[in-house]
Order: sequence, then structure tokens, then C-alpha cells
Amino acid sequence: MLFQVKMDVKIPNDIDQDYIAEVKAKEKAYSQQLQRDGKWVHIWRIVGEYANISIFDVESNDELHDLLTALPLFPYMEMQVTPLAKHYSSIK
Amino acid sequence: MLFQVKMDVKIPNDIDQDYIAEVKAKEKAYSQQLQRDGKWVHIWRIVGEYANISIFDVESNDELHDLLTALPLFPYMEMQVTPLAKHYSSIK
Amino acid sequence: MLFQVKMDVKIPNDIDQDYIAEVKAKEKAYSQQLQRDGKWVHIWRIVGEYANISIFDVESNDELHDLLTALPLFPYMEMQVTPLAKHYSSIK
Amino acid sequence: MLFQVKMDVKIPNDIDQDYIAEVKAKEKAYSQQLQRDGKWVHIWRIVGEYANISIFDVESNDELHDLLTALPLFPYMEMQVTPLAKHYSSIK
Amino acid sequence: MLFQVKMDVKIPNDIDQDYIAEVKAKEKAYSQQLQRDGKWVHIWRIVGEYANISIFDVESNDELHDLLTALPLFPYMEMQVTPLAKHYSSIK
Amino acid sequence: MLFQVKMDVKIPNDIDQDYIAEVKAKEKAYSQQLQRDGKWVHIWRIVGEYANISIFDVESNDELHDLLTALPLFPYMEMQVTPLAKHYSSIK
Amino acid sequence: MLFQVKMDVKIPNDIDQDYIAEVKAKEKAYSQQLQRDGKWVHIWRIVGEYANISIFDVESNDELHDLLTALPLFPYMEMQVTPLAKHYSSIK
Amino acid sequence: MLFQVKMDVKIPNDIDQDYIAEVKAKEKAYSQQLQRDGKWVHIWRIVGEYANISIFDVESNDELHDLLTALPLFPYMEMQVTPLAKHYSSIK
Amino acid sequence: MLFQVKMDVKIPNDIDQDYIAEVKAKEKAYSQQLQRDGKWVHIWRIVGEYANISIFDVESNDELHDLLTALPLFPYMEMQVTPLAKHYSSIK
Amino acid sequence: MLFQVKMDVKIPNDIDQDYIAEVKAKEKAYSQQLQRDGKWVHIWRIVGEYANISIFDVESNDELHDLLTALPLFPYMEMQVTPLAKHYSSIK
Repeated sequence: MLFQVKMDVKIPNDIDQDYIAEVKAKEKAYSQQLQRDGKWVHIWRIVGEYANISIFDVESNDELHDLLTALPLFPYMEMQVTPLAKHYSSIK
Repeated sequence: MLFQVKMDVKIPNDIDQDYIAEVKAKEKAYSQQLQRDGKWVHIWRIVGEYANISIFDVESNDELHDLLTALPLFPYMEMQVTPLAKHYSSIK
Repeated sequence: MLFQVKMDVKIPNDIDQDYIAEVKAKEKAYSQQLQRDGKWVHIWRIVGEYANISIFDVESNDELHDLLTALPLFPYMEMQVTPLAKHYSSIK
Repeated sequence: MLFQVKMDVKIPNDIDQDYIAEVKAKEKAYSQQLQRDGKWVHIWRIVGEYANISIFDVESNDELHDLLTALPLFPYMEMQVTPLAKHYSSIK
Repeated sequence: MLFQVKMDVKIPNDIDQDYIAEVKAKEKAYSQQLQRDGKWVHIWRIVGEYANISIFDVESNDELHDLLTALPLFPYMEMQVTPLAKHYSSIK
Repeated sequence: MLFQVKMDVKIPNDIDQDYIAEVKAKEKAYSQQLQRDGKWVHIWRIVGEYANISIFDVESNDELHDLLTALPLFPYMEMQVTPLAKHYSSIK
Repeated sequence: MLFQVKMDVKIPNDIDQDYIAEVKAKEKAYSQQLQRDGKWVHIWRIVGEYANISIFDVESNDELHDLLTALPLFPYMEMQVTPLAKHYSSIK
Repeated sequence: MLFQVKMDVKIPNDIDQDYIAEVKAKEKAYSQQLQRDGKWVHIWRIVGEYANISIFDVESNDELHDLLTALPLFPYMEMQVTPLAKHYSSIK
Repeated sequence: MLFQVKMDVKIPNDIDQDYIAEVKAKEKAYSQQLQRDGKWVHIWRIVGEYANISIFDVESNDELHDLLTALPLFPYMEMQVTPLAKHYSSIK
Repeated sequence: MLFQVKMDVKIPNDIDQDYIAEVKAKEKAYSQQLQRDGKWVHIWRIVGEYANISIFDVESNDELHDLLTALPLFPYMEMQVTPLAKHYSSIK
């Protein structure tokens, strides 16, 4: 079951730089693990913004919510979740 | 080069039903041809809306504009185009 | 799996009154069948608006999309779908 | 008498962690008491957001206002209250 | 129990003038009856707009919804309902 | 001459609690004096929000501006002022 | 007492051209009479829009409302009224 | 003196096709004349939209307003005008 | 050449009070000098807001930009600039 | 391939003044180098705002994203990117 998630990252300018560098490293590792697991099927950067558009493939709303709130950067992100369905013109 | 395109379809209620059925059939054929050509790489329906989220892979802005304005349903659609870049966490 | 759906009904003033009365009767029957099936678990009217807030319980995004687009009033409605998860304070 | 309440929680990043953990614990206890009392009839988490959609069943606007402003997290929340009426299609 | 209701009137320019004059006359009579009944306690015109701000005093959400949807101009109005509570600074 | 004023109060979380308690006490006294003077004719709390809807009866725009900017909480409020006129359906 | 009024004109494309030409002629005469009377003290066109920004000098909200709703183009306009006060830096 | 103008074209679906084709031909000729005159210095199409972003170089606000309202498609366009100044980083 | 400028002032609550008092004094002197020079032809306070609506009369966009960015309060203001043209109904 | 980029600069009032002066100097040098390289083909200041409208000419979305995120002021800017195509009325 597919969902589009748009994530806007808003990190305060006065945050400790070592701390946030560590959070970003964990975020990257976590994201790549979910990609390898087939849960996070696409992630693209929006040009010129500190934001991404992602596609998740999960079993349920609860699973998606658990994955998203476990993101190391979650406290610094605003998310917008859009449930997707099969399009009748899709050849897949 | 990837772009996300969100398309909202707004067909007037009083339109001729045979005419619009024909337009939709052409739209489906055109969309599937572009999918087979590798230009229209994803198309998903937004749940509960007459709208889709699509991903296009094109050579240039001009090519994308020509593909989109040639859509048979173009006169009845509102589009929002978002240029995408590679995300540094992507494993692809 | 629960979703909130907000439905705004916008019926053109110049529509044929017999036709729309028939559509509304079908809508009511269809809604009540889904309620009896346990798919449409709540429906409330928003005070002063031709709009409702509903809760659906479905197996997947595709099932929800099929239920919603089959509504007799669907061509006259704008919908906003919000996926819901279990709240950690809920006693249910 | 039913009301939908959407609550967005916005806790400052630099708040004292022990303090806010205590506030959240009180919030949970308070919420669950109101649920057992039949005042707070539903609470769902919005997927990917630090926000919930709730349904309250109260005697009056004043009672609802008193319940909401007594929430331990109230100073950190934005609320949107929507009065609900019985829907003519509802089978309840 | 008090509610503020903001009503915006949007009458199509091509509507039959005799018909709408009759609807407006009924609206005025209905409004004045509710005012004499103590249900519709204030009605003010917004300067420069075809809109009013009103205060209703009712027993329940359902009563308010019934009063509002029975307005002869209801099909041509957009309404925004705000539930009100006693203010701790009020001397009334 | 009547005006509706919507006041949203936004007090910073880190403000000195004694100071703000004193400001609120002054605000209440000032508001009640204006109510007794017949200038501030209604004040209602919006359910679930730190906001009020008020009706003022003043001689001029300048008098209203002076009253509002003299509110002790003015530096912490956002205001929206709507000029009101007599409604042709009003029985007052 | 001064008010800024922003007026957006939206005339349907299919309106009778002789009729609307007559309405516009009446509008111009009415506007110029109010300017000569010192009620409508400024009128400027917004560049590139069918809209104006105007300043009115009136005795009361009711007078302003009567002047505005008597505009021949009123049924085709959206208005936004902003009450103005003397600015403490003004040298007038 | 430079201005950015964003123009959105909204042509009704039921307009006479011969008539609008003639208007578009006149629009193109008029636009190209202004380009040759050095008044309309840039015109770009927004990808996927029936809209353009243009840069005008004129002597005054009045000249710009006259040029824009003389556009054959003006009755079917919404415009947004942004005055531009020299940027201190510009090498021109 | 006329422009309307709307200025919203947003001064942080924790700013040094002596410093900001000095900035405001400079702002007032600067504003009054521009008024005497005939550049800043009107300034009105918006009732209930820390904001003004002003009319400037300048030779060019660059001159206006230089005047506005030289305002002592500029770092604490949000501005919205609207170019104005002569209205065909104006008697001036 | 052309893109319009609108950049809004939001620098915190309490930032170190020497630090930000250095960042601005780097920004200017970087911008002028990109202008000389033919990548940043236009940059205009929006009158009265700390914002610019720019036109970039790049080979791909990825190149544009790399150029923009390398801006020294990027952490203090909000960007909006609009892909542009050739307009059929353009004489270039």
C-alpha cells in the first residue's frame, strides 16, 4: 500500500552542530535501511528546498506512522501524508 | 531528469458525455504510450480525489512542457510541476 | 485501518431537481449499506454546512478509493482524506 | 452533543525534557480519565504528524471549553473545534 | 449556548429576479421570527459585503443546524460556525 | 458605531510568570471598565482557543484604535477589526 | 473618518455588452459625484488588475455601507474594507 | 524601469473557437510588436501551466497599465505585477 | 508615480527597550522628512494593528526601494508594494 | 534550460553581525562568479523586500540544486523554483 510523504526539514539555526551532524548521520542510515527493506521505495530532493518527496510501501497506517515518527530528524520535520491508489491508466 | 507533476482534473458537469468519454480514452492511450516510452515513469491516483501524482523522466523543461500540454485532458486539468534532484540518502 | 474523510457537497443550483433527488436517495441507501457492513463507521454533519465528517474502516487505500468514487454524489463532492493511527493515549 | 477537535502539538525544541515528560504523563492520565467518563469518545493520531483528531460528547460549549483548557498540554497546542450534528443518512 | 455564525450570500447573477425577491422576503420574515423568539440574538451587516455576522442562542448543535439549514437563502450561502463560551473578563 | 474585533493572544512560553500575571490582571480590570462604560459591549471566548470575539461601540475609528492599543495585552495580541452596519432584517 | 476600500471587479464574460456599458457609465458618474462631495477622497487603479484602491471619508459605518452598496457595479464587485486611524508620524 | 508580470490565462471552455483563435493571433502579434519595441523584454511559459512570466521595461506605472490592459487576452487573464529594482550583486 | 505600501511592524518582545525607542524616534523623523519632501504623501494607521498603509510618490522603482530599505525600522517590517495608475473615474 | 528562482532572505535579528557580514560578502562574490559563468543570467531585487527574483540557465535539475544549496546564504533563505519553457510568442 503506497503513500506519498512530503517532508520539510526545519532545523533551528542555533542548534549544536555536532549534535545535529550526528542526528543527520543516523537519519541517513535509518533511511537507507528502510530503502533496502523495500519500505521506503523512493526518495527525491525538491530542487532548492531542504525537503524531500518520498514514496512508502507499508502494510497499514499504523506501520507508516511508526516508521515516520522513528525518524531521527522527526522532531525537526513537518510531514504531509497522501494515500495513493492504483491509477486506471497505469501499466504496472 | 525527474519531475513530479500533480494533476487535478476538473471536468464541467454539463459537458457532452460522448465527447468526454472519447477524450478520456485518448488520454489513457497517450498516457500508456508515454509510460512504455519510459517518459512517464509513475502515475498514482490520490485516494478520494479526481487527481493523480506522477513522475516524469525527460531531457529538458521544454520536452516536459510539450508532453503535458499535449495531454487530451490538458484543457480540463490544473498542474503543479516540482523539479526533483537526487537525494543524498538515496541508495539508487 | 481507519481514515477520516471530509466531504463537501457542491451541487450546481441549476441542476434538474428530479435527477438530483434520485441521486441523493441512492447516496443515502449506499451510505447506509456501507454503515451496516462496518466500512463507514461514523458520519456526522458539520453544523451549518453541506458537508460531513466521516470515519471509514477499510483494508487498504485501494478499497477506500473504490468505495469513495462509487458514491452517487461523488461528481458533486470535494474530499479530503486523512489516514489515522492508534493514539498512545487511547483506551480502546 | 458532539464536537470534532483537531489538536496540533507544538513543543519548543529547547524545553526542559523532564518537565515536558511530566506534562505528557499528566496529559495521558487526564485524557484517559475523560475517555472513561464518556466525555472524550474518540482520539486518533494523524499519521506522520504530532496531532490528533478527537470527538467529544459534552453538555454545552462552556463544558467543552473547560475540558480543553484544562489539558496539561494546552499551552503547547493549537485547537480547531467543529460542532457536529446528526447526519440524515446515519443509521445510529 | 451561544454561537457566532458568519453568513456570506452568493446569489448567481442570472437568477430569476421575481423568484429571488420572494426568497429574500421569506428570509427576512424567518429571521425576524427567530429574533423575536430569542434564538437569533444579533445580526449585523459587514460593511461593503453581502454578508452578516450573527449570534445564535440555542439548546444544542442539532437545533442550530436545523435553524440554519431552514433559512430560505441557505442554498445561496456559505456559513462559518464558531462555538462561544463565557469569557472570564465578561461582566455579564 | 459597532465593530467586531477578533483578538488572538500569543504569549511567549518563556515569559516571566509574575509579570504576565500582573498584565492579565490589568487587562481584566481595563476590559471590565470599558464594559461598564458601554464601549466594549460584548466579549466571548472562542471555544478551545486563547482568543475572543468582541463587539465595540465607539464614536470613531480613532477612538477604537486608542482603546485597543491601550490594552495591557496588546503587545501579545493579533487583532482583526471588522466594521459593522445595521442589517435590514434586524428588529432592533 | 477614513476607510480604505479595495474593490475587485468581476464581470461575467457573457454579460450583455450594452447593459454593462450603461452600468459602467452610471458607475463613473456616481463615483465622480461622491468625489466632488468629498466622500470618495482618492481612487487609484491597481496596475494590471481590474481593481481599485480607494479612500473614503464618512461620518459612520452605516454611511459607508450605504454609499458602497449603492454603487451601480456593486453586484459585480468584491470589497475589502479597512478602517484607518491617524498615524502618530503623520504631519497632517 | 523593470516589472515582473505573471499572467494566468483562463479561457472559458464554451467560448466560440473561431473568436478565441482570432484573439490569440492578435495577442501574439501585439506581444511580438512590444518585444521588438523593447517594452516586453522577456516572456517565458511556466511548464505545465497556461501561464507566463514576463519582464517589462517601461517609463512609468501608467505606461505599464496601458500596455497590459490593451492585451487582446486581457479579459481572460489574471495578472500579478511585481516592481523590480537593481540588485546590489548584479554585474549588469 | 504612485505606489501603495503596506508595512507590518514585528518587533521581538525581548528587544532592548532603549535601543528600540531610539530606532522609533529616528523612524518618525525620517518619515516626517519624506512627508515634507512630498515623497511620502499619505500615512495611515490600520485600526487595531501595528501596521500602516502609505502612499509614496517617486520617480522610479529604484528610488522607492532605496527610500524603503533606508527606514530605521526596515529590519523589523514586512512590506507589500502595489503600483498604482490613474483611474479613469478619478476627477483629479 | 531556464528556471525562475524566488529567494526570500530571513536572517535572525540576533545573529552575530561580523559573521553575517562575511557571509553576505561571500554570497555576493559567489553570485557574481555564477553570473560571469552564464549560469545566473538575471538577478533583480523585489522593491521593499529582502528578496530577489532570479533566472538560472543550467543543464539539469541536479546542477541547479547544487548551485542553490551552495549559496552562502542558503541556510537563511526560502526558495521557490519554477521551471520555464519557450513561449510560442517569444521572438528570441
